[in-house]
Amino acid sequence: MPAITDHALEERAINTIRMLSVDAVQKANSGHPGLPMGAAAMAFVLWTEYLKHNPRDPDWPDHDRFVLSAGHGSALLYSLLHLTGYNLPMKEVQNFRQLGSRTPGHPENFLTPGVEVTTGPLGQGFANGVGMAIAEAFLAARYNRPGYDLIDHHTYGIVSDGDVMEGVAMEAASIAGHLHLGKLIYLYDANAITLAATSNVSMTENVGARFEAQGWQVTRIDGMDTDAVRGALDAARAEQTRPSLILARTVIGFGSPKKHGTFGVHGSPLGPDEVIATKENLGWPAEPAFYIPEDALSLFRTAVDRGAEHQSQWDARFAAYRLEHPDLAGELMRALAGELPEGWDSDLPVWNVGDKPIATRKASEAVIQAFFQKVPTFIGGSADLNPSTNTGMKGGGDFGPQPDPDPEDIQGALGGGWDFAGRNIHWGIREHAMGSAVNGMAAHGGVLPFSATFLVFADYMRPPIRLAALSHYRAIFVFTHDSIAVGEDGPTHEPVEQTMSLRLIPNLTVIRPADANETADAWRAALEMGGPVVLIFSRQDLAILDHSGATGDLSQGGYVLVDSDGDPDIVLIGTGSEVDLAVMAREMLAEHGVSARVVSLPSWELFERQSADYRAAVLGSDGIARLSVEAGTIIGWDRYTGSNGGSVGIDTFGASGPGAEVLAHFGFTKEHVAAEALRLLGDHDAATEIEPKRRGGETAGEESEGHEGHS
Amino acid sequence: MPAITDHALEERAINTIRMLSVDAVQKANSGHPGLPMGAAAMAFVLWTEYLKHNPRDPDWPDHDRFVLSAGHGSALLYSLLHLTGYNLPMKEVQNFRQLGSRTPGHPENFLTPGVEVTTGPLGQGFANGVGMAIAEAFLAARYNRPGYDLIDHHTYGIVSDGDVMEGVAMEAASIAGHLHLGKLIYLYDANAITLAATSNVSMTENVGARFEAQGWQVTRIDGMDTDAVRGALDAARAEQTRPSLILARTVIGFGSPKKHGTFGVHGSPLGPDEVIATKENLGWPAEPAFYIPEDALSLFRTAVDRGAEHQSQWDARFAAYRLEHPDLAGELMRALAGELPEGWDSDLPVWNVGDKPIATRKASEAVIQAFFQKVPTFIGGSADLNPSTNTGMKGGGDFGPQPDPDPEDIQGALGGGWDFAGRNIHWGIREHAMGSAVNGMAAHGGVLPFSATFLVFADYMRPPIRLAALSHYRAIFVFTHDSIAVGEDGPTHEPVEQTMSLRLIPNLTVIRPADANETADAWRAALEMGGPVVLIFSRQDLAILDHSGATGDLSQGGYVLVDSDGDPDIVLIGTGSEVDLAVMAREMLAEHGVSARVVSLPSWELFERQSADYRAAVLGSDGIARLSVEAGTIIGWDRYTGSNGGSVGIDTFGASGPGAEVLAHFGFTKEHVAAEALRLLGDHDAATEIEPKRRGGETAGEESEGHEGHS
Repeated sequence: MPAITDHALEERAINTIRMLSVDAVQKANSGHPGLPMGAAAMAFVLWTEYLKHNPRDPDWPDHDRFVLSAGHGSALLYSLLHLTGYNLPMKEVQNFRQLGSRTPGHPENFLTPGVEVTTGPLGQGFANGVGMAIAEAFLAARYNRPGYDLIDHHTYGIVSDGDVMEGVAMEAASIAGHLHLGKLIYLYDANAITLAATSNVSMTENVGARFEAQGWQVTRIDGMDTDAVRGALDAARAEQTRPSLILARTVIGFGSPKKHGTFGVHGSPLGPDEVIATKENLGWPAEPAFYIPEDALSLFRTAVDRGAEHQSQWDARFAAYRLEHPDLAGELMRALAGELPEGWDSDLPVWNVGDKPIATRKASEAVIQAFFQKVPTFIGGSADLNPSTNTGMKGGGDFGPQPDPDPEDIQGALGGGWDFAGRNIHWGIREHAMGSAVNGMAAHGGVLPFSATFLVFADYMRPPIRLAALSHYRAIFVFTHDSIAVGEDGPTHEPVEQTMSLRLIPNLTVIRPADANETADAWRAALEMGGPVVLIFSRQDLAILDHSGATGDLSQGGYVLVDSDGDPDIVLIGTGSEVDLAVMAREMLAEHGVSARVVSLPSWELFERQSADYRAAVLGSDGIARLSVEAGTIIGWDRYTGSNGGSVGIDTFGASGPGAEVLAHFGFTKEHVAAEALRLLGDHDAATEIEPKRRGGETAGEESEGHEGHS
Repeated sequence: MPAITDHALEERAINTIRMLSVDAVQKANSGHPGLPMGAAAMAFVLWTEYLKHNPRDPDWPDHDRFVLSAGHGSALLYSLLHLTGYNLPMKEVQNFRQLGSRTPGHPENFLTPGVEVTTGPLGQGFANGVGMAIAEAFLAARYNRPGYDLIDHHTYGIVSDGDVMEGVAMEAASIAGHLHLGKLIYLYDANAITLAATSNVSMTENVGARFEAQGWQVTRIDGMDTDAVRGALDAARAEQTRPSLILARTVIGFGSPKKHGTFGVHGSPLGPDEVIATKENLGWPAEPAFYIPEDALSLFRTAVDRGAEHQSQWDARFAAYRLEHPDLAGELMRALAGELPEGWDSDLPVWNVGDKPIATRKASEAVIQAFFQKVPTFIGGSADLNPSTNTGMKGGGDFGPQPDPDPEDIQGALGGGWDFAGRNIHWGIREHAMGSAVNGMAAHGGVLPFSATFLVFADYMRPPIRLAALSHYRAIFVFTHDSIAVGEDGPTHEPVEQTMSLRLIPNLTVIRPADANETADAWRAALEMGGPVVLIFSRQDLAILDHSGATGDLSQGGYVLVDSDGDPDIVLIGTGSEVDLAVMAREMLAEHGVSARVVSLPSWELFERQSADYRAAVLGSDGIARLSVEAGTIIGWDRYTGSNGGSVGIDTFGASGPGAEVLAHFGFTKEHVAAEALRLLGDHDAATEIEPKRRGGETAGEESEGHEGHS
């Protein structure tokens, strides 16, 4: 749409955004009026003249994405959604921040039509947008054909001083510049005010110069001047290679006579008197609240017709494309619908008992190779750990810059051109931005994204993992090197509490398979799951387990792997690399006349989705002795071990040494597991017989390290 | 020490570092030889000519700090420590990465003399060094007097491509430039190789320009040229205001004919053949391994005499200072020894039953005001949330740039000069770097540092919290807004799993006080604790609890707050804001003839340190019904509730709405707690009587949200 020439109307429209936001915050007596008041002019220009969107069908595939990274300014977004005709009625705006409303304090993608991503924790939206631009570039490269630019949209965002201070945003800015994401355009609402202070109390860096160093086009404008905003957006759209940062100086709380330009307007309502003073100052009627001038509304609502027109043009384009490229069109439709191709998993490898032991990370590599060509929108990579996480797709191509084709070039310099259809993303050593970008890719849709790094670095990615769970993103987070078996790298690289702490996150499915075959099942579950999944793999080789006596499989979360002969005396519950330990301990126990059942419990969450009867059948009767075996913290295991339970686990940090020695040092041996089982059953003599000494001469019995739990 | 003029000796000394490292990695058959080989020349110059240190007394207060942020290059650091005469015998170098050695895979501060901080997780060391420079600047400003520069040292570091890619390092760089930490000097080992690839596969930004934008002095040199290194270090030391980045181009794996300059040498041993080829290439004897030329050793060992001389000069200076400034000298000695002044807590406030309810964050504010003047090296602040975390020290002054003294300046511009003696640090919206810098301050010693933000953002700081625990840093991490009671800000800002997930971290003490008086006790425990502590405070007001019937206090971690009349029918265990709920529920239960005990359990870790008898006495006899009440995940609570237990908790994300409504929605009411207790005791009729309906008409009974645990 061309810029409007009626400046009075333009000002009314901008003030409509401001006053709707101010009234919503005031009615809730909670919220952040400052950002909407300062950013309203920019937002007006973007939403009424540039953004390609269809309020009546927010999920239309080729719409421009919009991210309000500064999620605390949610009132701005709700105002825009209501005004431009999304299904967000006035009563929702008036119920801002109330229980049950679709206008929560920070935007939530699954609640509100038109909210693309959940934002609020600063920096996340910034990095989400980078993931969206990656998804767009990938889908465009893969599916567009001459004459058919089916995927061709921008990712816009409004980011704040707080966003650009967060490390996750700086990492994301670096990868975005590196990858030449030219269709990413951020309006930086540089109002120089943070919640607690003027931003220069803590920030005096030259943000524009920093972004330039990271490969961005930076324009510097007065963000209150709509023509300057238009010029900057035009320049950003003209730039094909570099992402763009429009550094827009704005006045926080613009219009408030007493509070504009102060941090007092950042995170608190104006107060009734200042609301009135502001309205007066802006020539706005004091009453009614939530007043919308009719001509302003008409102006905003032109978005509806424009959106319908965009979409019908696209539909026609797609229909022609489907005629000319039927297979590709079918593939794209499936991808956009989030469906997997039939038979995608028909070639997953199967391992047999007696095959060479294999690390689950390596089994995972084989599984990936067996399906990735059939699932063409599966895309991702590791944070500079491909040789270790084994997540590379061989022959899948690299996303972005290509290596020099000259194999003699020892430095491996780039120079092979550019390819956005590559499946392997080199995230760099940027775990946090990797997680957040994966979320953005999932939110964009059309792709099935994954990340990968060591399990201990799940800590670096915890904010995006949580947001994936809250937002129901279909994201897969792969973590390898999953215990103290990491060995020589030592405690800084040995996860202990990570697996359990991921289980604590609501809505997240965590899977730690026990062997190669469970690994294939874990990938199957992960791809078929609607929500976020964490896959946890071992560094070390693991035996192929005998499933011939199993009563279930990984899809149930937990199942009896090997049952006892007759009623069990004890149930050994293992996950991941410790299941085989339990199997071996079971055999030692049999020699002592103890009948043990072994349960493999790769996923608590999948197990909890089974019926109570099934779970009880697996775990055994009330009061039975149960011993959990997991190379991680024992807090939490009481849930399954119950009143006569114990745990072989580790509640301290690990140690540096060869992996097998470290495992033995902390009690992860079949002898120790068997001895602990016997102790739990009260047979201390047999326990001492099996495990007379451990740890370089210490007698058996627990002290400070390998902690066995009480019940 | 002046630069040596014997170039052949210099080369021998540098190669000694390289070959010791190569042999250590090869013997371990594990480790990273590439960095030590490439960075040896820089390290040689720094450690033999610039670093002010005393190998015989690594903890001497005024020594220059050295951080190997690229902790995977640990063999370099161990070589340097051994060669310059630290208590790290050759057998330790030869036991690199073995169980029980003092040379673990990544440096651990508590294991190895001369290792200042634990590094390995990339970016952490970079941010630790910023904290060390803050501590130095603060102590210098506070304790130096004319003629007595007692605190006057630099913080040096070697940082890698991986370090500078991490968001935590970018945040730290931003705050370091902002704070004018001119005595911070980093050698950036720019070898253009990461573990998986050449770094340009994922990183093409202009790092030097980015640091310049963040306020650093940047010099660009050939890092293999010792004179260039000297020139750059001289320039960095001459710069008083800006921190310095010496961008040194190096060759990873220098000396290895086949592997130099490749990622093959980053994270794997050279292999026996390439070790021999490398030695031949560098003119080094193939045998014996771990060969140290005598003249090279003598050169390195001059550090011992030089260090003794530095220290004796300092001792003399300090003795004179003590005569002239006895009070200050005593205070400084206490601070360096980590001792608290006697009576530091004598004025902590006491609240009485019936006093106005007060949020524990606000009680904490009152407590801080009551002790901070007496503990002059207590220093810290929040990540832009002072008005909310209530952690400001009133009249304590701001660390760094001062606000403009003109109160009329609505923008609050700076312009009031500079003060490094200020106690309040404005960390900016940089939670991750805040945590890591606090670790560095603690590792530096002399200060008692703290950070503060909302509990949900503990996720942003998890890596440094883990490292604080691993490294036994005396750091205090304050988190406020500790539950769904956050209210309007909604689920992105409402912690659910955070408290429990912090409890999972080994060596970390987590305290969530129940009221204002427990808050004072929590601060008392935190300051007197040798290791890291997390303090968790409420947003909302909490009643002052009646402790007149209590059998213990917070120092024991858990205690009976109100006992039952006679043997209890049930034990209600609460933490934080939910303790008062339990007290109110107890009264309701009494009306139904049920006798309940209320246990306040503010700290699991402190409680676990008590005797088994004490714990049993608090929790009641085996088999008794116990109900935990905590507005957080219930996984983990089975540990205390046992076989007849239940939990009132929340295992989903929260919701946006007024705090009290959100709490009620998720079942945090006295009625619901009492009803759940009755259900646990089998009295469903009474339960229904107390709580006929909840959640806008739903009948009582649990579905998906406020989850009550099985046992």
